[in-house]
Amino acid sequence: MGETARLSPGVNVALIVQKYGGSSVADAESIKRVAKRIVDTRRAGHDVVVAVSAMGDTTDELLDLANEVAPIPAPREMDMLLSSGERISMALLAMAIHSMGFDARSFTGSQAGMITDDHHGSARIVDVTPVRLREALDEGAIVIVAGFQGFNRDTRDITTLGRGGSDTTAVALAAALNADVCEIYSDVDGIYTADPRVIPRAQKLDHVSSEEMLELAANGAKVLYIRAVEFARRHGVLIHARSTFSSGEGTYVLGEGMNDPREVEGEVMEEPIVAGVATDKGQAKITVVGVPDVPGKAAEIFKIVAKSGANVDMIVQNVSAAATGRADISFTLPKADASAALKALAAEQAEVGFDSLVHDDQIGKLSVVGAGMRVHSGVSATLFEALSTAGINIEMISTSEIRISVVLRDTDLADAARIVHTAYGLDAEVEAVVHAGTGR
Amino acid sequence: MGETARLSPGVNVALIVQKYGGSSVADAESIKRVAKRIVDTRRAGHDVVVAVSAMGDTTDELLDLANEVAPIPAPREMDMLLSSGERISMALLAMAIHSMGFDARSFTGSQAGMITDDHHGSARIVDVTPVRLREALDEGAIVIVAGFQGFNRDTRDITTLGRGGSDTTAVALAAALNADVCEIYSDVDGIYTADPRVIPRAQKLDHVSSEEMLELAANGAKVLYIRAVEFARRHGVLIHARSTFSSGEGTYVLGEGMNDPREVEGEVMEEPIVAGVATDKGQAKITVVGVPDVPGKAAEIFKIVAKSGANVDMIVQNVSAAATGRADISFTLPKADASAALKALAAEQAEVGFDSLVHDDQIGKLSVVGAGMRVHSGVSATLFEALSTAGINIEMISTSEIRISVVLRDTDLADAARIVHTAYGLDAEVEAVVHAGTGR
Repeated sequence: MGETARLSPGVNVALIVQKYGGSSVADAESIKRVAKRIVDTRRAGHDVVVAVSAMGDTTDELLDLANEVAPIPAPREMDMLLSSGERISMALLAMAIHSMGFDARSFTGSQAGMITDDHHGSARIVDVTPVRLREALDEGAIVIVAGFQGFNRDTRDITTLGRGGSDTTAVALAAALNADVCEIYSDVDGIYTADPRVIPRAQKLDHVSSEEMLELAANGAKVLYIRAVEFARRHGVLIHARSTFSSGEGTYVLGEGMNDPREVEGEVMEEPIVAGVATDKGQAKITVVGVPDVPGKAAEIFKIVAKSGANVDMIVQNVSAAATGRADISFTLPKADASAALKALAAEQAEVGFDSLVHDDQIGKLSVVGAGMRVHSGVSATLFEALSTAGINIEMISTSEIRISVVLRDTDLADAARIVHTAYGLDAEVEAVVHAGTGR
Repeated sequence: MGETARLSPGVNVALIVQKYGGSSVADAESIKRVAKRIVDTRRAGHDVVVAVSAMGDTTDELLDLANEVAPIPAPREMDMLLSSGERISMALLAMAIHSMGFDARSFTGSQAGMITDDHHGSARIVDVTPVRLREALDEGAIVIVAGFQGFNRDTRDITTLGRGGSDTTAVALAAALNADVCEIYSDVDGIYTADPRVIPRAQKLDHVSSEEMLELAANGAKVLYIRAVEFARRHGVLIHARSTFSSGEGTYVLGEGMNDPREVEGEVMEEPIVAGVATDKGQAKITVVGVPDVPGKAAEIFKIVAKSGANVDMIVQNVSAAATGRADISFTLPKADASAALKALAAEQAEVGFDSLVHDDQIGKLSVVGAGMRVHSGVSATLFEALSTAGINIEMISTSEIRISVVLRDTDLADAARIVHTAYGLDAEVEAVVHAGTGR
């Protein structure tokens, strides 16, 4: 038990929600390993509710089947199809726990009271009514819930939550059941000051604020989904990101007013200014060259881009030559969105009146995130100085209250991250052990 | 449309329930083929409700997974697991129909209102409340229902119906929705006067009474499950057994007072005395030798056999030698049950006081079934004479009101069936075309 017992000093029984992703339950052996982990938590005296994803590649296999029978599968039926994946993993997990001598019951999204709107494929949770889960917990059972799925009360149809759905299921269950902690298991053992595959001296964080986590996730960190972190922040759920493959503690994601459960009460620690460095190679840059420098042109351009379905991240406008009355507007967006955006812009070239389009997908984005930036000055100066000393050119800059991002050549990204990590004093004394994970 | 329109003369719209087994939806291509068939029925103007099994080997694969994670899987979780199979096939089928431009909606057992008792793994249907199905039909949709599954109203848990479950689902839906016909699709095109693989001159029957069908199914015919036929008989559902692979009509199974929809009204046809000849190689014979010829011994023996879980079929008792005061009792049972029954009997040998046990699994059973036997005499004489002329020895005989069964050497079974089929005038002029089916 150890860490979890400390969650409620003086009280031994906690309610713990655990989430296991597809790679944690990829085959019979993995399922038995996860079952053992759950049983260990139960043995320590805690109540346990588990949200589980579909086994390994199940979802991809089902998607392939759907595409074979129908070019554009009906969304209601797609959700019916995909929701079978968690049904398989959760039933197997419950069986495995049963055979270890513990009562375990699996529940579908609708049985668990996971009520969503009717947007098939990306439904949003509108309410959780976990009546059956509470009953099962009261009877001493371990509760297993299908991640990723819910149902709509009006249509009475099954829905799925879309990307990061199982994390969100876990957090929503933790909120509805007023759980002490929501443990999100994956193949990495926590949140690091940087991606350990890029920066071997990255350090695992004991905790990170949910604001910082949101900025890190939005800028390339892949351990937690933004949506789940946002949900946890709004509903005051304590997240503990940890590894399926080790028993060590991971990283706590702290919402407003929360304390790291490992800290001794009353002991106030100075928070580091910078929590972490995130890198992202998934973006491309488009520059609209020679835009007439008159009001409303930027709005025109980004309306066109938005209509193409692209999700714009950074925007920089610079007047190329004041005398010509024309400006260049550059923006970044996910690589996958670039061609649609380019096509949409090209179609409106005459209307908007720009000269040309430049597409650049050889960029990398480096972000420095830290809640301490709010009260400390000079944080950006450290970044710019470190990069300039190393001779690395900055192409774009954007900032938020607790983040500074710069766009660089993608070939410079790894070097830049290492230099910046060192400059902010984040380097560990030893290199991190990287698990050969298969993603989540 | 053709055949189905004739079901309700003067009314063009019928409500048709169709059932497709696992081999009919084994892969994407098969699913598309079945979808086309369903759409054709809808195009003919009929309302269609479909019960579908899990794809091909899905159920076996899920069973394997269950056995890998738990030696004795919890029954509730086993049903949760297995019920995911139909969820996949029904969603894919609905998608395929959708992509042909028709509205189709899939429903799980619980969504379809298939209410059962709480015997996980072999639940019995106690009620069907197809509110959502009626709504969908009223809105013009094709309804796809998961076969084999239901739910218990008290525990609110998912259940499965066990062997032949999808046939039973289809018949139960037909009864609850007052359908005009329940079409059971498989890889054979109807009920034959004998197994065409054994007797090439077997004829497809236009119709068969449900009583005859029950006797044929109980004695080796494998096209329909007894349970579904029994349900249909009790609830007045017209079954049409036909092939997924051809458009021809199959065989109607007629309950009390039902007429073959293809017959012209008023035209009364003479029914043949014998409907068909069934063969069964799946049984073994056990002889209990030297049983004390005192009252109560047979009861003692069959209580022991029943407790071993064996399902006894035929029983014959003959006093071997009146002077000794001892008799031999022989009975047949499924081959798979024989070793448990032998073990149970051997353990009680002293108690019962018999001399020895003889096990014989080289037997075959031949049954002649026909409702006409009720009013015609001499039916059994034809059987015995035909076999005797051919020099085939009869080892056991048992009869019901509409059936005569004999036990023979298994090596004689095929010859015997052919001879008897001819003796009752059942031979067709041409040989039947046998489809290379993979079972149901």
